[in-house]
Amino acid sequence: MSRVLSGTRPTGKLHLGHLVGALENFKKLQGHDSFFMIADLHALTTEYEHKTTIAEKTIEVVVDYLASGLDPDQCTIFIQSEVGEHATLGLLFSMITPLGWLERNPTYKDQLRELKGKDLHTHGFLGYPVLQAADIAIYKAEKVPVGEDQLPHLELTREIVRRFHHLYGKEIFPEPEAVLTPIPRVPGLDGRKMSKSYGNCIDLSDTREEVIRKVKTQMVTDPARKRKEDKGDPEKCPVFFYHKFFNPEKTEAVAHACRNASRGCVDCKMEMCEKLNLFMDPVRERRKTWMNKQKEIREILDKGAAKARSVARQTLTEVSKAMGLLA
Amino acid sequence: MSRVLSGTRPTGKLHLGHLVGALENFKKLQGHDSFFMIADLHALTTEYEHKTTIAEKTIEVVVDYLASGLDPDQCTIFIQSEVGEHATLGLLFSMITPLGWLERNPTYKDQLRELKGKDLHTHGFLGYPVLQAADIAIYKAEKVPVGEDQLPHLELTREIVRRFHHLYGKEIFPEPEAVLTPIPRVPGLDGRKMSKSYGNCIDLSDTREEVIRKVKTQMVTDPARKRKEDKGDPEKCPVFFYHKFFNPEKTEAVAHACRNASRGCVDCKMEMCEKLNLFMDPVRERRKTWMNKQKEIREILDKGAAKARSVARQTLTEVSKAMGLLA
Repeated sequence: MSRVLSGTRPTGKLHLGHLVGALENFKKLQGHDSFFMIADLHALTTEYEHKTTIAEKTIEVVVDYLASGLDPDQCTIFIQSEVGEHATLGLLFSMITPLGWLERNPTYKDQLRELKGKDLHTHGFLGYPVLQAADIAIYKAEKVPVGEDQLPHLELTREIVRRFHHLYGKEIFPEPEAVLTPIPRVPGLDGRKMSKSYGNCIDLSDTREEVIRKVKTQMVTDPARKRKEDKGDPEKCPVFFYHKFFNPEKTEAVAHACRNASRGCVDCKMEMCEKLNLFMDPVRERRKTWMNKQKEIREILDKGAAKARSVARQTLTEVSKAMGLLA
Repeated sequence: MSRVLSGTRPTGKLHLGHLVGALENFKKLQGHDSFFMIADLHALTTEYEHKTTIAEKTIEVVVDYLASGLDPDQCTIFIQSEVGEHATLGLLFSMITPLGWLERNPTYKDQLRELKGKDLHTHGFLGYPVLQAADIAIYKAEKVPVGEDQLPHLELTREIVRRFHHLYGKEIFPEPEAVLTPIPRVPGLDGRKMSKSYGNCIDLSDTREEVIRKVKTQMVTDPARKRKEDKGDPEKCPVFFYHKFFNPEKTEAVAHACRNASRGCVDCKMEMCEKLNLFMDPVRERRKTWMNKQKEIREILDKGAAKARSVARQTLTEVSKAMGLLA
């Protein structure tokens, strides 16, 4: 069984894009050798000036993990900052990571440009991929479920690992591979990628009624199909994307009805919405249950951190020895 | 009593310059609230490509600490990499440390220029002062015995601490002050600053005979005094510097004899050398004893790390809370 590591930054509530794009992927990969972290240290790289606390959002992500169906008996769920070995391996990796690799990283340059209103010219933000490399390498993970935007970071992880092996003459780490989700880009209510910063999300915490309201009033359809009589192009309609995922056995019929203008968008939306709600119901149910189990959540996190630490410490000892430290 | 933190990078044997310039200062400041570390992580910033291990040198520094008279019952002696909280606080500080502060640091620019043959354009070397700030702040140290070359780093520590307080509205750390040694610059055998890289050292591990040989054959004197009849200028003679320190009650007589050419340099050296050896004898004695007590040294280091950790953890919890992490 391949070792798996992935994580989520606790910067807000999780939404359907996370569920379909990442958590379903996590769920498929879970097994006794999977580590799923809440990356609170990574959240700090961009949110260090935040006014509210990351702590609350951290717990929300844990609840969303559990609600999505991750089973703490099948995988290790833990908080990054509670396993100190991540920071230590990050520091050790930073010793061998050329500044040029980090400065030329395309994601770094994009984010400096895009995340306006934040001062990201910090040593920590520049070192983001080094910490991420440590997150993966400390568990000797072989598979990393990530979004496409993380591919340059994963390539940096492989480069850091290779440089380590070259410098110290010891093959300690596997070169990790990305496991991309089959649905890399979930459209939001406005058709753009679903993202908290666009305000176009269906949140995992939304009730049935909120989902119906959002789909009915906010979700866009093929803009060329203005009246019921206009023929539509389903590939241009976010609602159809959702049908493909949540209503797969009807996909052809839905597409046909759209192309032939034999059904209006509202009816089409309502059929999709019912399927979406059916999909979300068990998530909502589990969410409600876990929200009232703060003590059990703390126990899961303690158990997760202990398990993670025991693996991480072993790797750290090997690494320290290879680098010539007393270990 | 003020909390004290200082350390030494284990990059080679300690010499008389360390003893007089740093360890005597440590000894004066020791008390139950002093923390003296062997900074093996800092050694990695420049020695990450080293072929021999830092581990051996780490133990040599511990032996030299104990030989110089540091008393493990009076102070906490520990290895930096054995207290994981340094790396974690370093990472947290890196989140709030602007790259510009590090890039403009004069010591950084000097070292990039001077340490030839080493690739120091790494994320870890740039972050050296951030880790140093964490070393100090994790113990809330108020006094830091350092050499003059470290003053810019200490100023950076104060700036990072002030920025932390400003961002999170909590005064967690004191602003640490340097405690400069009264003898900031011990001349080596060739008159330049004593430094391993100049090959001009009297090592703490040198025998009586080695010291005599080095002083007799390698130590320079006032270059203007070529023959015994030439009058000398003691202020231009490294031997006289040593007289001032190791033979203080005779300083005036020695200076007088030099200025009047009433004694030759060899005799002058031999008088100094005897005093120097008397000063070094107890250090040598303790060194020999400790070299054979590897088990006791491990116990001292374990006790030191445990003590350091208990203080460091408390600070880290406060810091994590202030930054909004679950702690």
